This record gives sequence, structure tokens and C-alpha cells, in this order.
Amino acid sequence: MVIVMKQSTTEKQIEVVIKKLVSQGFDVHRSTGVEHTILGAVGAQVVDTRDYELLDGVKEVHRITEPYKLASRAFRPEGSIIEIDGVKIGGEEVIIMAGPCTVESYEQCDIIAERIKAAGAKIMRGGAFKPRTSPYSFQGLGVEGLKLIRKAADKHGLLVISEIMESGQLPLAEDYIDIMQVGTRNMQNYGLLRDVGRTDTPVLLKRGMSATLSDLLLAAEYIMSAGNHRVILCERGIRTFEMHTRSTLDISAIPVIHQLSHLPIIVDPSHAVGIRDKVAPLARAAVAAGADGLLIEAHHDPDNALCDGAQSLKLEQFDKLMEELRLIAGAVGRSIAEASVRVAG
Amino acid sequence: MVIVMKQSTTEKQIEVVIKKLVSQGFDVHRSTGVEHTILGAVGAQVVDTRDYELLDGVKEVHRITEPYKLASRAFRPEGSIIEIDGVKIGGEEVIIMAGPCTVESYEQCDIIAERIKAAGAKIMRGGAFKPRTSPYSFQGLGVEGLKLIRKAADKHGLLVISEIMESGQLPLAEDYIDIMQVGTRNMQNYGLLRDVGRTDTPVLLKRGMSATLSDLLLAAEYIMSAGNHRVILCERGIRTFEMHTRSTLDISAIPVIHQLSHLPIIVDPSHAVGIRDKVAPLARAAVAAGADGLLIEAHHDPDNALCDGAQSLKLEQFDKLMEELRLIAGAVGRSIAEASVRVAG
Amino acid sequence: MVIVMKQSTTEKQIEVVIKKLVSQGFDVHRSTGVEHTILGAVGAQVVDTRDYELLDGVKEVHRITEPYKLASRAFRPEGSIIEIDGVKIGGEEVIIMAGPCTVESYEQCDIIAERIKAAGAKIMRGGAFKPRTSPYSFQGLGVEGLKLIRKAADKHGLLVISEIMESGQLPLAEDYIDIMQVGTRNMQNYGLLRDVGRTDTPVLLKRGMSATLSDLLLAAEYIMSAGNHRVILCERGIRTFEMHTRSTLDISAIPVIHQLSHLPIIVDPSHAVGIRDKVAPLARAAVAAGADGLLIEAHHDPDNALCDGAQSLKLEQFDKLMEELRLIAGAVGRSIAEASVRVAG
Amino acid sequence: MVIVMKQSTTEKQIEVVIKKLVSQGFDVHRSTGVEHTILGAVGAQVVDTRDYELLDGVKEVHRITEPYKLASRAFRPEGSIIEIDGVKIGGEEVIIMAGPCTVESYEQCDIIAERIKAAGAKIMRGGAFKPRTSPYSFQGLGVEGLKLIRKAADKHGLLVISEIMESGQLPLAEDYIDIMQVGTRNMQNYGLLRDVGRTDTPVLLKRGMSATLSDLLLAAEYIMSAGNHRVILCERGIRTFEMHTRSTLDISAIPVIHQLSHLPIIVDPSHAVGIRDKVAPLARAAVAAGADGLLIEAHHDPDNALCDGAQSLKLEQFDKLMEELRLIAGAVGRSIAEASVRVAG
Repeated sequence: MVIVMKQSTTEKQIEVVIKKLVSQGFDVHRSTGVEHTILGAVGAQVVDTRDYELLDGVKEVHRITEPYKLASRAFRPEGSIIEIDGVKIGGEEVIIMAGPCTVESYEQCDIIAERIKAAGAKIMRGGAFKPRTSPYSFQGLGVEGLKLIRKAADKHGLLVISEIMESGQLPLAEDYIDIMQVGTRNMQNYGLLRDVGRTDTPVLLKRGMSATLSDLLLAAEYIMSAGNHRVILCERGIRTFEMHTRSTLDISAIPVIHQLSHLPIIVDPSHAVGIRDKVAPLARAAVAAGADGLLIEAHHDPDNALCDGAQSLKLEQFDKLMEELRLIAGAVGRSIAEASVRVAG
Repeated sequence: MVIVMKQSTTEKQIEVVIKKLVSQGFDVHRSTGVEHTILGAVGAQVVDTRDYELLDGVKEVHRITEPYKLASRAFRPEGSIIEIDGVKIGGEEVIIMAGPCTVESYEQCDIIAERIKAAGAKIMRGGAFKPRTSPYSFQGLGVEGLKLIRKAADKHGLLVISEIMESGQLPLAEDYIDIMQVGTRNMQNYGLLRDVGRTDTPVLLKRGMSATLSDLLLAAEYIMSAGNHRVILCERGIRTFEMHTRSTLDISAIPVIHQLSHLPIIVDPSHAVGIRDKVAPLARAAVAAGADGLLIEAHHDPDNALCDGAQSLKLEQFDKLMEELRLIAGAVGRSIAEASVRVAG
Repeated sequence: MVIVMKQSTTEKQIEVVIKKLVSQGFDVHRSTGVEHTILGAVGAQVVDTRDYELLDGVKEVHRITEPYKLASRAFRPEGSIIEIDGVKIGGEEVIIMAGPCTVESYEQCDIIAERIKAAGAKIMRGGAFKPRTSPYSFQGLGVEGLKLIRKAADKHGLLVISEIMESGQLPLAEDYIDIMQVGTRNMQNYGLLRDVGRTDTPVLLKRGMSATLSDLLLAAEYIMSAGNHRVILCERGIRTFEMHTRSTLDISAIPVIHQLSHLPIIVDPSHAVGIRDKVAPLARAAVAAGADGLLIEAHHDPDNALCDGAQSLKLEQFDKLMEELRLIAGAVGRSIAEASVRVAG
Repeated sequence: MVIVMKQSTTEKQIEVVIKKLVSQGFDVHRSTGVEHTILGAVGAQVVDTRDYELLDGVKEVHRITEPYKLASRAFRPEGSIIEIDGVKIGGEEVIIMAGPCTVESYEQCDIIAERIKAAGAKIMRGGAFKPRTSPYSFQGLGVEGLKLIRKAADKHGLLVISEIMESGQLPLAEDYIDIMQVGTRNMQNYGLLRDVGRTDTPVLLKRGMSATLSDLLLAAEYIMSAGNHRVILCERGIRTFEMHTRSTLDISAIPVIHQLSHLPIIVDPSHAVGIRDKVAPLARAAVAAGADGLLIEAHHDPDNALCDGAQSLKLEQFDKLMEELRLIAGAVGRSIAEASVRVAG
């Protein structure tokens, strides 16, 4: 912590500050300049900097260590690779997760799973418990949904990612899910973070709509400090004044997270932009900027989807996008799994 | 719903849109202008407007009914008064809720309760379960904390408001709390909203840091649609680019909510600004703008508080503020309970 | 400036940083801690902190002196009062500026001037050069407008405030205007700031829609560094994601500016909220929070106003608001000039 | 314009609204539903929707035509290509503009021009008049700077883009500049927009820091309505709460602008992110998302640059980036001019 004193500060005021620092266990280094006196406080404690801002004579207080440790780059400078049944997130390969907003039926899951697998996806997404802004909207199939997506994914050799909304759903999740998603609206639901952190299942943590990247890393720290270090971060857009898109994808989050943290970061272009016809440009941008993966909504019949059909790609659009992404991944020294079937035209 | 077609739209495209509207149960009225054709769709259904935006020939879609019903002004045009043991929130009197960020001891609660009661507060706040952004911060005393604040509040004739973070805490809450607070970070924790809505205890619902006022009312709708109509809304600042304050208090929320909804709205100036020396101007502004109440942090020894001491008023500051607020309440045709003890000088 | 080095920094990297600091004229104080080495750089130079962030081994760089000097509180700790023909802005009295969005005719100005003067306003506002977001909107009467408002204001003993949009308008302004307004969209039009700074006329500087308070003070510094120290700051709302109001009035700006700067700060509730029926609550809040004045749109026939009629108060609404404001000013130890005519009812 | 009446509206209130609409020249179509009456108003007039919001019985008013015409996609559905001396902006080729933040010397311009030309850039950037947030910062070489960059660009066969800050600089600009840049802080300086619109020189218009995309298109409309249709839009980041980057690049602006307007859109990653080590990921993302060009700061000796060296790429970094961009352009069906010299390894 660095404390800058006002020009007019008295020697006595400075002594009060130093005394408080020492009482909280800091080593204090003092620099006396013509205009300002600066106090450098060295120590590992996390304190509330505002307690010092309110002391007489203090001009500014700067924290010099981030309040997260386990999530910081310094904890694992070489970066983390989260490996699940041979799928490696955070490595050279860009991992594609795709599927419907919500699980509707086994037939739906089967059709979609077959196509996304053929196009090169490794992980299938699909919601069973749905966080809906309106209490009158469809809330998901629940555990039945988890069973359906699990069965379809297994048939086609895909992993499953699905959202967990409450701690009570964790036992189910462990039975049916490979990656538990903690959604945007739960990024600071600390009870859920703690409980998810006590499991062994990898977690995809979505950034809150007004969360800074430091907040996102602190939320990851909650999970990691409870024991589960297999956390994947997900940028999905933040809230700004621009209304032509559902939210504003913060593309810079990718290089910034790679600098601040060792955790992998993926991008959800579907929720960020909220409308199908602009998903592909954002997905391409994310891979070009260095994302470790993508989470994309795709549906065989989006016009009749029960949820968020408007932002789901049609399967032929998904196929085409995958071809473009493969070229872009190559351009930035990464790769995406080959398609098993060649797309026509 | 109103659908505006592009200038170049063909008759066939218009027919497709009309057919979809009718199939979803809407009555459709068509206006053909020189530049644009407009379709007015009348019906009570909540549909995803984006499904229509993606149809060929559609330029824009406007929703004309808010997706909340129970929380809207139209549901109870005269406004709601939430009455708890004779304390009326939403009436002529501006209700002051005050107390420490977190319950630390019985002695602490007793000292603070006595003073805030004397100054005119009706409700005591104090956290037992604390949502902390860092997993390494103090997390609250839990049920022990609830017992301590209950005892002190009872001694001095105050009601108790305290935060509930997880559904598992609800039984405890019903035993010790008069108003259950749902915090900023849980405003879209839908499981919690639903469970809180199944109780009979009044709820104070805080606006999320990036929640629009429509989002806030939809969150209230979640609680109300589960059966509990006694909801008090709370503005506590939103996230903007301005960094001199912890968040930006949206003072306009007060008249806007009074127009959109029948629910009372109070203001938390302490969390909005985040530093003690600016709490009083915001508290005064809130009453001047028509707030139905205030939630203020006050502590007898904030320099040694376990949590958020920097934003807690000292008790003599709180006394002085209450006198100012009483004058302002009078200026806007409201009142605040008299102090039982006269403040010196 | 304070530079925090990474944990892994080598001695050689630290030396490079110190050498650069010394070459830029800083005195350097070094503190070596267990985790981090901190370099305190003391000197008056304004440098680009990012140049240091990019050096090897550097973790963070904090600026410790604000880049504005003349506008800072330290420059005049007792605060500035801008006096114009006996009207003092920044003193004990809260100064009310009111009038139409745009000057339309002499008759209009005369009617409005008479009424606002009677209600206690000291300064008349009215635009002659209008910054309109659409090139197809009414652009103002120009110099003719200035002559009309001047004549009406003189008749009723009011000062005139009006907006200047281009340096070429300055000679006209000096003839007809007492306070030159620099609008929101010109807050960073540096040529205009410099030219306005070379005049002797007081300036009302409006905060840009996405300007931080530091940006606002730097814009004031531009004017002041050119010689004109008579600057009044104006908060008028910032852009956020909330769409129920035109912009979000940052009520906290009042106490923050009073702490950071010696310049007076007033509030424009009309442009902030953008609709008549919510102007009064915001005006009251501003006075309660300590604003030194208000800039309010009022019109005798807003339904037929050429510009922004929707956000203009009717004159009887203005009268009523002034009575409320007078009570609130009293509650916070300030005053507003008495009305010469008693408002009925 | 579509006007939705409240449920409780009386027939008389509806008549008042219809009468006002007709008096303003609208054709009105009325739809009477069970809950709401909807009035569709068809006409070409631009009116202030708030005037209707304030009428009794009105619930909501929606504008259905954008207030810009010349800038809208409908005006030229096939898209615009701005051609300058054979360089086509908005066509199949992605055009790269690069160079220093500010012109420092002929030697500097010569070195940089040679290298960026060899790497495939078509246009050289370099500021002569600099908008600096601090009045104490270097303000540019002025007309001398324009002469230096012109000479260097001519020698190497590059076009010149440079910023114009005041109308008084326009005659100089016409002599030395191929594309006049209107900067972020001047996006709503309407006098400058009008004057720039009266020239024949192509204009690059940067988005304001808190401008919506509609605002940006309205600013373009100002220029176009004055006669100059050769406008290139530039996304350069918007202000949000995220502080790890200077601003948040709105990558979605690219597909949105392509949908709303026929004008080309380019991206300035250097100013968006503000620090050199994150420019390349954003530049790649922009091309992947479909940008028509890039504006990049590059310098042969950024550590000693007079301005914004921290965000300028070194020339070898620029060379490497151009190779990556060429691959990405290919992946999205676009191209970038070949480098004349092969980059080593």
C-alpha cells in the first residue's frame, strides 16, 4: 500500500498514519519530497484502504497488491490447462462449446450433438436449469434435461457443460455434467461459489454484467480458495449505454486476463450480442484476439426454440462459422479440431 | 407489440409476420404509410421480440407492455404502504434504518441501538451473513449475530433488517428478522427470490450494480409472483466510469420508480458513495428527491469496525444528519420521527 | 509517481527504471519489501505513466499528483466566489439561473424574465446558438437572439447566461452575455476552451456526458491556464445504461467537486433528466446535496416551445419549486433570494 | 411514430393526442385493443417524442424512423466506397493507416513512412494539431508538421491522414491532407462538422467516448448534409467502468454499423486500449469482425516519442502484425496489400 500525504500535512498527522500502519503489521518506508511525503507500506495483509483515506492529512491511498492470489498470473506464470477426458482448455487448441440455449428433448439434443461434433466442437452446451429475467418464462426441464443432454453427448463423444443455479443442484450436476457453469447473475453469489469450489468438477465462471476483470478474478478466487482450482473464465459482454446490442463484448478482456491470470478465458458471443446475425463476427474476433475457446448457441430449428432462439445459429451457419474460425485460429498460431464432414459450398 | 416494416418490404414478407403474430395469439392492426407499414399486435403474451426482428422485412420491434405486472403502478395506482408492527414504509413518514455494517457484539448493538432510536430511527440494520468480494474477508457472525441484534433492537423498540444470502438461511431469518434484505449481488439470484417470495416476511430488494430499473422491477415481480407482495425497493448506486465514488447514486431512480411502480423506494447512501464524509449530502438529497426511507451505516467506533467502517457515520454525525433530514422532509411535505433527545450544538 | 515492481524483478531492471526517472528530473526513494520493491518518484513533472508501465519488471504505476493545479482545492483552500455585478456564485446564497431553452422572441423573454425574477432567480438563461444533435433541427436565432435576451434581462434586473459554440462568436458574447456557457459537447473542444480563457467573461463549464470529474477539472484548467480564473462548473448528468432518464444525474459530483476544487459547482436538472415532471425532485436533491446554484429551463408556454419544451417547467411549476428550494436551502445552512410576489396556494 | 396509450385512457385524451399529431402533419392509424390503444403516426417529420410523452393518457412513444437519412443504409444499400487516388476504403481490401501519434521531424516521418509502406500500409497518420487533455502537454508542430508528413508520405507513395481541430485549420488541411480526421472530443462540435462538410476532402469521423452508434451516424449526417458525402467512421473505444484498459473497444460496432449505414467503418485499436502490448490482439479482432480498415500508431523509437509512445507499436511489431492481419483478412474473404519486403522470422 502506498499512502500519499497532502502538501499541508503536519508531522504529527504523518506519525498517526505510520502508527496505524505499524499496528496493522506493515513495514513502513517514508519518502519526503518537496511537495508530498509518501509512505510505502509493505506487508501481506489485505486492509480497507478507505480507513487510511479518512485519516487527517492523507491525500490518496493506492493498493499495490491485488486481493486475489490463487487466480493471479504470478501463482502459475506458465498458465493453466484444464484437462477433462483428454480435452485441454487453455492449450494450443481453441475449444468450441456449442448447443442449444435450453434442453428441449432427446431428439433435439441428438440432432444438434451429431452436427456440432461433425463440425469440430468438443463440448455440448444446453441448459436444464434456466435463470430467466421474467418469472413467467420457461424455467427449464431440470434434472430430466440433464439426463437427455448427457445421453446425446455420450452417444456422439462430446463433453457436457450446463448451468448450476443453486447449491442444491450440485449432486445432480456431479452425476451428469463435465463442466458446471456459474452464470452472469450468480458471479457474486458467494454461497454458490464456495459450494462449487468444494467439488471436483471444472467450473466455467461467467463475468457479471457490471463486473470488472478484478471482480471476475476475485470470484474465481472464491472458488479456488475452497479447493477447486479448475476454473475457466468467460467473457460475455458488459452493460454500457450502447443499445444496438444486448451488451458490449469486451474483446480486450482476452489479452488483459491472459496478463493478469493463469486461468483460461473463453468468449460467449451469443449472449453478448443477443442476435443471431452478429454472432459470427464476434466469434471470429474472439479467436483472433486469442480466446482459448468459444461458447456458442446453435439449434437445428431456432425459430421454434423454447428459449433464446433469436441468438442461436442455425446448424448450417455454425458449420460455416467453424470453417472461418479454423482459418483464423491458424493465423494466430492456434488450431481447432478438424470437421469430420466437409461443408458444401 | 409494434412492428415496423422496412420501406422495401414485400407484401409477402408482411404476411409472414402477420401469420406468426396470429399464431402466437395476437390481434393485429395494420397501418400502411408512404414510407413504412406498421403492425400493431395486441395481446397479453410475453414473447421474445428478437424472434420478430429476425424476420425478413422487419425494421424494428417495440414491446409496449412491461414484462412486470404485480410490481407496476397500474396494479395499485394509489401506492403500497408496507406496515410492520406499526411502522409504515411508503406513507407520509420517511423511515430511517440505521446501524452497523456488521453485528460484532451485543454491547456494540446495544450502544448503537440506543443512540439511533433516540435520534429518530425506527429500524436497526446489521449484517450477520456478509457477502464479501474477497474470500479472505470477515464473513459475519451468522446466527449468533442475528440473536445479538434482535436482543438489542427489542430492548430499544426497533425493528430489525438484515441480509439473507442463501435459501438455507430463511428459517433463521423468520425467527429473528423483521425485514429480509436481498443484496445487490443477489438481485438476480432467482432461486433466492422465489424462496423469499414464499415467506411472509417483508423484503428489502437492493438494485444490482448494473441493473436497470426495469430489471429491478422484474426482480420484485419474482418475489411477488411467489406470493409475497411486501417488497421495498432500494437504490444503492450503479456502476459507471466515475471513480471518485464507489458507485454513482442514481437519484433519478426515486421519481422514476414512483411513476413506474406502487412499491416504496428507499436509498442507501452509505454503500453508494462508500466513504463517510459524503454520506450526509447524499442522504439529504435522497429525502429531498422523495425517498420513502434511508438505510444508513452508523457505528459508535467506526475506526475499529470489523467491516466498512470507512463508510459508517459516527453516532454524533448521525444525530446531526437526522436533524437536517427532518427539516428537509418538512420542506417536501413529509416527516421524520422526532428525536427523543435534543442534540447539543 | 509511485512505481511498484514485480516480485520477480531483477536488480538490473530496477536500475533501468531509476535511471529513467532521474533522467526525467525526479528524486527517487526506494523501499525494498519482502514481496515488492516500491519506487517513490518525487517531482513536479507531468509524465505519461504508461511509459513506465511498459518497462521490464514494472507491476504498476500510480500518479500521485493530479494533472490540474489552478483548479485544485489546494490552489485556493478557502473556495472561490465568482462575483458578477453583485451576484455571488459560490457563497452562502444558492443562485438560481432559469429561462427558456432557446430565445424565440422579445415578448417571450420579457414574460419569462419578469416571472423568474419575481420568483427569486438572479440570472436568465436562453440559447441563441444551439448545439443540436440533428442538422435538421432549429439552430437558434444567433446574434438577434442575444440582443433580445439582453434587453429583457436588463429590463428586469437579471444577468444573462448563454452558450457559445465557436470562437468566432466570442466578440458577440462579450457584448451581450454575463456568463458564457461552454456546453457538454464542447467540454473537450480545446481551441474553444483556450479562446474563452483569453476573455474576461465568467464561464460556466458543463461536464461532458462521459467525462470524469478529473476530466472536468482538466477542462477548467485549460480555461484558467489561459488567464480566466472565473470558472463555474456544472453537473448535468452522465451517460449510463439506465434508459428511463435522458442521462443519470451524478449527485455525488457536488461533494466530490467541493473536496477536489475551489470552484463553485451548480446543477442542471433539466438536461439531466430530460422530462419536465422529474425536474423538481432533482433540483431539490441538488440543493440538499450542497450545490452552489441551479440552471433550470422554464417557459411560459412549453407546449409550443421551439426547443426542449418537454423538459421546461411551466412558470407556475417554477414558482412552486422555488418555494420548496428556499426551505431546503435553509435546512442546509444556505439561502435563496426571496420572491417578490407571494405564490398563491 | 407509435404512441401507446395507458389502459385507463379516456376517449377525450386520445382525441387530444390525435389532434396534435394531425396538426403536425401526421397520418394517424388507430388500433384499439383490450388493454391498450395504439396510435400509429405516419409522416416524415422529425419531432420531439417527449412532447407526446407528457400528454395525459400517453404511456409510451416510440420513434420509428432514425433521425439520419443520408447516413442510413437505405440511402445506398450497396454500401459506399470512398476512393482517394486509387485507394478504396469500404471495398474488398482492408486499408491500413499507420504512423506516429504526432509529427516530430522529417527524419522521423521518413523512417516510419518507408517501413509502413513496405509492410503494406496505404495511408500515413501523424498529428500536427494535437488535442491534449492537459493544457501543459505538447500541442503539436502545427502547419510545419503538416508539411513534414506530406513530404515524407509523397516520397514513399502514401496518402496522409491528420486531425483538424478548428475550422480555422481547414485551408491548411486542404493543402496538405488527404483525409481530415475529426477527433473523438470533437464528434459533436457541430460548427466544425458543418465546416468540414463544406469541403471536398474525405473525413474520418471518430466516435465520441460516450456516443451511441446513432449519435455517430447523426454526426456523419451533419457533415453529409453540408455536402460532403465522403465520410469514414471510426470505432475507437467507449468509456465503461472497466479500468484495465483506457477504454473498451466496442467490437460489435463493426457489424452494427454495416447494418445501419452504407459508410465504411475502421477501427483504432491504439487509442482504444492505450498500451502497446495489447494493440495487436485488438487489431486482429477488428479485421476478423469485418472492419474496412485500421488506424494504428507505429513509431521507430516509441520510448522517446513526444506523445503516446506507450501505445505506439515498434516498427518490427507492426511488420509482424501486418503478416497476421493478412492471414485473417484472407480468412474473412478480404485482402491486405502485400508487403514489398519479407519480414524475417
